[in-house]
Amino acid sequence: MTIRIAIDCMGGDHGLATTVPAAVHFLVSTQDASLLLVGNADDIRHALTRHHVKPDARIEIVPASEVVEMDDPIEVALRRKKDSSMRVAINMIKEGRADTCISAGNTGALMAISRYVLKTLEGIDRPAIATVLPNQSGVTTVLDLGANVDCEPDHLLQFAIMGSALVAAVEGKERPSVGLLNIGEEVIKGNETVKQAGELLRASPLNFYGNVEGNDIYKGTTDVVVCDGFVGNVALKTSEGLAQMLGGFIKEEFSRNLLTKLMALAALPVLKRFKKRVDHRRYNGASLLGLRGLVIKSHGSADAFAFEHAIKRGYDGAKNGVLGRIVLAMQQMHPELEPSVVKPEQTFAETII
Amino acid sequence: MTIRIAIDCMGGDHGLATTVPAAVHFLVSTQDASLLLVGNADDIRHALTRHHVKPDARIEIVPASEVVEMDDPIEVALRRKKDSSMRVAINMIKEGRADTCISAGNTGALMAISRYVLKTLEGIDRPAIATVLPNQSGVTTVLDLGANVDCEPDHLLQFAIMGSALVAAVEGKERPSVGLLNIGEEVIKGNETVKQAGELLRASPLNFYGNVEGNDIYKGTTDVVVCDGFVGNVALKTSEGLAQMLGGFIKEEFSRNLLTKLMALAALPVLKRFKKRVDHRRYNGASLLGLRGLVIKSHGSADAFAFEHAIKRGYDGAKNGVLGRIVLAMQQMHPELEPSVVKPEQTFAETII
Repeated sequence: MTIRIAIDCMGGDHGLATTVPAAVHFLVSTQDASLLLVGNADDIRHALTRHHVKPDARIEIVPASEVVEMDDPIEVALRRKKDSSMRVAINMIKEGRADTCISAGNTGALMAISRYVLKTLEGIDRPAIATVLPNQSGVTTVLDLGANVDCEPDHLLQFAIMGSALVAAVEGKERPSVGLLNIGEEVIKGNETVKQAGELLRASPLNFYGNVEGNDIYKGTTDVVVCDGFVGNVALKTSEGLAQMLGGFIKEEFSRNLLTKLMALAALPVLKRFKKRVDHRRYNGASLLGLRGLVIKSHGSADAFAFEHAIKRGYDGAKNGVLGRIVLAMQQMHPELEPSVVKPEQTFAETII
Repeated sequence: MTIRIAIDCMGGDHGLATTVPAAVHFLVSTQDASLLLVGNADDIRHALTRHHVKPDARIEIVPASEVVEMDDPIEVALRRKKDSSMRVAINMIKEGRADTCISAGNTGALMAISRYVLKTLEGIDRPAIATVLPNQSGVTTVLDLGANVDCEPDHLLQFAIMGSALVAAVEGKERPSVGLLNIGEEVIKGNETVKQAGELLRASPLNFYGNVEGNDIYKGTTDVVVCDGFVGNVALKTSEGLAQMLGGFIKEEFSRNLLTKLMALAALPVLKRFKKRVDHRRYNGASLLGLRGLVIKSHGSADAFAFEHAIKRGYDGAKNGVLGRIVLAMQQMHPELEPSVVKPEQTFAETII
């Protein structure tokens, strides 16, 4: 089965200069995928030509006349730019022409348009943004990362269900462990919302580990870490800031003088391995979960290498039936929801058409 | 003027083995300080003898028969152990015998006992925990770090006042810049509490920068970063976890085989400099602010080097009149508060006796 991926080619800080080379490189390495490149048709064609590629059965250009700018207010993106590359790319999922869609554009606009065009899944009040972060032995999936600044206990439970389904589908773990981000391990810790969410999680069929703390994200104590979008966003940005500062310090110390530069040269193979291991570009691509379609948000400043990872994340999610998995999990939790014929291995586009 | 420091010698994971050597070393390097070592008198005397030190005018032993254990519930620490080393050390401030007090014990117990014994300052609803974190060119003071999981806008304003006063006193910056931790720079970002706190801060005489994001803590965008205790705790613990993971990765890569070990040897001077620069022990010692006395909380697992930094932090705070500074700032904000004769250069013990 071919996975059909819509790409918003105009989004992000670098637009076509990043998205098209990433798309071309991805397609070479992934035989069972086809791409819909959305944006200014002439510009996309030129960019493809530069990579000696022409549109064919696996790579189609879908024209869109507008672009959502990084600083466009959500209202402008949603109401005034109905032919934006972002919106047209999302439409591809709705029309059943794509199984997933990738954009490096404005997060708020992407979430708003996705929600408006695709709608949320049965039983999900609010979509959430999930990402993977490296841990000592693998990755930890964290959500929400900023879509929901005020959460009720029930929302945190829904995030846990969606995060579990994502990990179960993509990493093939049958019952991923779920941690609730808190400021202590004891049940009595935290604010009211978190305490109540803990009770809901303990009563749920999920593999709930209990409370975890910030450091557990990088220890890898659980497969999934659940938190509200405010806390998740702060945790993510704080991590980015710390990693950047430490990287800067290492660079500074090694370039202090000729001697230290020689030392850097001597240690280069190790430093390179280390750098590769913690390269944040490999973790690029956050999943917007809870929608009737799988939308992937790439970092706005992603380069082609990073953007390709975001494409891969969409491909993996669609291929492994993340959406079907979420739908099934929601039905198991709430049998009163309308029954559905979704099977986990189906992509969602197949399900809703 | 001699700064008198009470030390809870029994607290923390290592107790006397850490606190006494740290105290002895501190006293040698700081001539205008005297210490009250609180705990089991015989054990403290033995520990001092091991360092060839006898009690004298600058080092006095204050007996206390009980110890607050790391896992003691707050109720037990507060109600049942009235002769704990922690409580007796805090009492030294109240009795005017010490200008500050340092403990590596259980944070919850330390906050509860401090609050009970010392009470909060006029105009402060809730004490907060402040720490410094390294940034690209200095340090950022962050509060609250876990004392308050649910905050009203007014509490965040009070944290900002206290954080500003701390930085003004200790770092000698007249109007430290204050950032409000949020998930975006725009005024419209964040939850209701944070938005309202932003309005209060904008209307205040503080040097309010505006919203900052998690990465700004390590960029050093502002001198002070204010947040509720839940968010602050997650940011701190997440940072600890990430730093530990990255440190582990560097070690792993350099000890992979004989060749990489040789590379580590070649780069050792640089690696050591880097390690020293980011050594978290140098940032040990969080200030409990908003109380009628300056209490410093050391990390429970601190070694002697780290604990000595916590003692230094208490010494610096007392010497530079942090409490008087907070009192003055509160009076400037709320002229209706009872007038006081506190001068910034006074230590608080002098003020309340």
